Amino acid sequence: MKFQVHSDLEYQVLQPSTFILNIHALRTATQTVLEESLMVEPYIRLEEFSSALNANRFIRLEVTEPLIFKISYKATVDTISQIIDQKQEKGATPVVQLDGDIIPNLFPSRYCQSDKLQRLANNKFGKIENTFAQVIAITDWIYENVEYLSGSTNSQTSAYDTVSERAGVCRDFAHLGIALCRALSIPARYFTAYAYNLNPPDFHACFEAYIGGHWLIFDATKLAPLNGLVKIANGRDAADAAVASIFGNVVCQSMQVTSEVLENNFEPFYYDNKQLKGLSYE
Amino acid sequence: MKFQVHSDLEYQVLQPSTFILNIHALRTATQTVLEESLMVEPYIRLEEFSSALNANRFIRLEVTEPLIFKISYKATVDTISQIIDQKQEKGATPVVQLDGDIIPNLFPSRYCQSDKLQRLANNKFGKIENTFAQVIAITDWIYENVEYLSGSTNSQTSAYDTVSERAGVCRDFAHLGIALCRALSIPARYFTAYAYNLNPPDFHACFEAYIGGHWLIFDATKLAPLNGLVKIANGRDAADAAVASIFGNVVCQSMQVTSEVLENNFEPFYYDNKQLKGLSYE
Amino acid sequence: MKFQVHSDLEYQVLQPSTFILNIHALRTATQTVLEESLMVEPYIRLEEFSSALNANRFIRLEVTEPLIFKISYKATVDTISQIIDQKQEKGATPVVQLDGDIIPNLFPSRYCQSDKLQRLANNKFGKIENTFAQVIAITDWIYENVEYLSGSTNSQTSAYDTVSERAGVCRDFAHLGIALCRALSIPARYFTAYAYNLNPPDFHACFEAYIGGHWLIFDATKLAPLNGLVKIANGRDAADAAVASIFGNVVCQSMQVTSEVLENNFEPFYYDNKQLKGLSYE
Amino acid sequence: MKFQVHSDLEYQVLQPSTFILNIHALRTATQTVLEESLMVEPYIRLEEFSSALNANRFIRLEVTEPLIFKISYKATVDTISQIIDQKQEKGATPVVQLDGDIIPNLFPSRYCQSDKLQRLANNKFGKIENTFAQVIAITDWIYENVEYLSGSTNSQTSAYDTVSERAGVCRDFAHLGIALCRALSIPARYFTAYAYNLNPPDFHACFEAYIGGHWLIFDATKLAPLNGLVKIANGRDAADAAVASIFGNVVCQSMQVTSEVLENNFEPFYYDNKQLKGLSYE
Repeated sequence: MKFQVHSDLEYQVLQPSTFILNIHALRTATQTVLEESLMVEPYIRLEEFSSALNANRFIRLEVTEPLIFKISYKATVDTISQIIDQKQEKGATPVVQLDGDIIPNLFPSRYCQSDKLQRLANNKFGKIENTFAQVIAITDWIYENVEYLSGSTNSQTSAYDTVSERAGVCRDFAHLGIALCRALSIPARYFTAYAYNLNPPDFHACFEAYIGGHWLIFDATKLAPLNGLVKIANGRDAADAAVASIFGNVVCQSMQVTSEVLENNFEPFYYDNKQLKGLSYE
Repeated sequence: MKFQVHSDLEYQVLQPSTFILNIHALRTATQTVLEESLMVEPYIRLEEFSSALNANRFIRLEVTEPLIFKISYKATVDTISQIIDQKQEKGATPVVQLDGDIIPNLFPSRYCQSDKLQRLANNKFGKIENTFAQVIAITDWIYENVEYLSGSTNSQTSAYDTVSERAGVCRDFAHLGIALCRALSIPARYFTAYAYNLNPPDFHACFEAYIGGHWLIFDATKLAPLNGLVKIANGRDAADAAVASIFGNVVCQSMQVTSEVLENNFEPFYYDNKQLKGLSYE
Repeated sequence: MKFQVHSDLEYQVLQPSTFILNIHALRTATQTVLEESLMVEPYIRLEEFSSALNANRFIRLEVTEPLIFKISYKATVDTISQIIDQKQEKGATPVVQLDGDIIPNLFPSRYCQSDKLQRLANNKFGKIENTFAQVIAITDWIYENVEYLSGSTNSQTSAYDTVSERAGVCRDFAHLGIALCRALSIPARYFTAYAYNLNPPDFHACFEAYIGGHWLIFDATKLAPLNGLVKIANGRDAADAAVASIFGNVVCQSMQVTSEVLENNFEPFYYDNKQLKGLSYE
Repeated sequence: MKFQVHSDLEYQVLQPSTFILNIHALRTATQTVLEESLMVEPYIRLEEFSSALNANRFIRLEVTEPLIFKISYKATVDTISQIIDQKQEKGATPVVQLDGDIIPNLFPSRYCQSDKLQRLANNKFGKIENTFAQVIAITDWIYENVEYLSGSTNSQTSAYDTVSERAGVCRDFAHLGIALCRALSIPARYFTAYAYNLNPPDFHACFEAYIGGHWLIFDATKLAPLNGLVKIANGRDAADAAVASIFGNVVCQSMQVTSEVLENNFEPFYYDNKQLKGLSYE
């Protein structure tokens, strides 16, 4: 499915600052960037790089004097997602059978303190046999118990806060989903995206859980169709895949994000607790 | 310098459990494992693996029935460390010049909430110009302000706790050092090791900071000579490089760790605030 | 109902220390101390005092040199409790109608961070109309979701921890009950007691909620009959009513607590979600 | 010294709500309210009350329908403060000699987790012999290490946060001061006031420490002269003495606070580390 995505960010730099931005559509076997452009106004030299952790396409730029600049990214992206039947997935893959690359997604991370939520996760979801149904139950529980409330959290808020305070935004919903999965020994990772039909439009954060050999996408906010995502990044949590990591004194003045589908036959896909069909972007 | 290292772990498994252990000496360009053996009694099939994150040599084994088992690791290891003059290192490497692989070591992690310690780090250490002296000041501050107290912390304790509660063990000292470095935009990572002349003998945890293009070793506990370490693992914090991650119900019954130097000319090396000479294992 | 209660505490004092102990049966309009004795061996001068906060009978003693001492309290106590029908109690007493003395029991305290649990409390219990049924639902929820696990918590553990970590002892169960009540604007306070038929025997902690003009007793642990309590103290939480507050370096070597009923007609009373009959010690 | 104090609060009530406000000047042996007026526009019935905890003059009012109202308090107040020489105060009053009413001010409270800061307090301030000098050292340390930054904290922020995050407002400075005193066994309590020459004008929060039989005033913000305070309330922390506790959905639209001195001979008094003269409002 083809999407046109677009983000416009405007920053006021008060002191010399360095930016690490992660807004490019990822290039993967199932996601092709057909066309893209990045504009910075006024011109500032920037550099694209990836880290060893993952293929995320970071850019960094250094602003050496106070100024206001605008960065604008546009891309046409073709994504392939597949629906995978999950009826047979009884029990998480035994840790002993997981690939070495998958295992770090079992460990706790900055915003996903799975080590502190083991009892809660086991009591609430431990008895569900089918692993996909288990993660669906986690997202349903978050959706029902956590209020989506803009401005209720900040960049220090973690799953351990959200599980008690019960309010947050997409980032917090994703962190809590990840933490609860890991607490059940289900590998899980953070997933940022341009999301079609997200309202209000913004960068979106979801998560993937590793079930039956596939990374399946989950979104506890239920704010956008699961098959309308253009992946930006993966990471253990927002520490690895923040839209912007800024070293300096900077004010974000505006942020506009859009995603449009370029084909006629887009049919929104959401999970259905009875069908047990998962969606994978890999 | 050649060392003979040895660890004996005995576990009582109460229910079927999976172990991920990280006790092997690492193989790097500067650390050669001349000879090693691993014994498990009674025999349990195990598998060695590494993760994409780093070259850490994990082993995993699955115990399917209640039993007591003993795992014994022995190795003769030759390490090369170099002393690097740090007098010229004024200011951390600008983020914009760091290699993509280094950057994740700037981000906060489970036990190192550098995002919450920015003001403290800047107020206390922000004015020191030489970066090596800055990290020495961090380790000195931890050494003077945090009490080394066995049993005062547990596997959930993080740098954010230790900075207030002021007690901990080597793991906590390392986490706090890492968090304070990252809060100053100095990349830092966790480092586990067999340590010569550590008293009482145990696995040891230190940290490395990336200064002037080198990973330099630091130990805020000051409990062992810096040049007597045999590296086991690196990671962002103990979540990545725990000696043992256990999925199941298990009691550790005993743990014995030793390290002996096999050469006559070992001269213990510690940092000296005036000399500004750093030690690197890379 | 008459009870004979007894506590034996043995402390090893390592350095000069001051003890504030709160182990005496309270004297109230409905609780008569018929007979009591307190012995300290070896003899140390002690003093009984109360605070302005409440009538709690504290004792304090100062030990000026290292020694081992034993303190032994015995009392025969006659308690009167009344059963009060709660069918009519729809909605908490409006804050505007509460007596000034009751209001502090609405505010958050050290171990009962009700301010952080408002959403959770309202989502889970906000729709229950009858106030007594609401608090019963709180205790049932705690009983079902928190594991009673000796040694899982310490003196710093608070309701905010327990609501996520889901394990604790009677003190933690009480703190969480109090915090959830206050989050719903129901005044609640901590209540320590000698409890008949508590297994294993120990000092017990419950809580009282103020409903329809009465302080009613609640016990989320369900470990002892509600009508078998001999009240020791009230307070906003364990900070006000700890069995022992010790200023110094001391090891508790043993603690034995017993309570026996002296009449034949004791019939254990527990709450019943359908009957809506509350029990008050006032 | 006579002061004229004034506060204007404007609230938009979105849903039926109850307010507990604590803005009246306290009446004590050393503080006389010569004249005062309270106006609510439009008229809403309100009631003044005190709690058993302290003499704080709370008012409460219930707003049963959405509206905007304004509450305006004016008073002329005569305060007497005394300067007390502290040169002789070596060591905190032994707990065993404290009056029963003072002791609760040694215990940890919602925003003052003194139990978690014992090591830090002892390491930093434990060796100072004179108790007054000790508390001066605490306020100096807070002043130097915590940044006064409006908007950096919220009503859930506690001393445990501030000691690490190192930013806050007067309330946070006071909570940290209280927590550090209590950690050293020095009784301490929260103190709210109208403050002369506070810039920007607002309600002010300081703290009192109990030294040598007197409650002495301390202000770690150093933003206003110590002898220009008109006391509103005491409490263990802001949970007991908040300017406004609101049960409902309300927006504070404006808050204006002023304090003027009515005599000519006001000489601002601040502490001086060498003089060791304390100021008491009792």
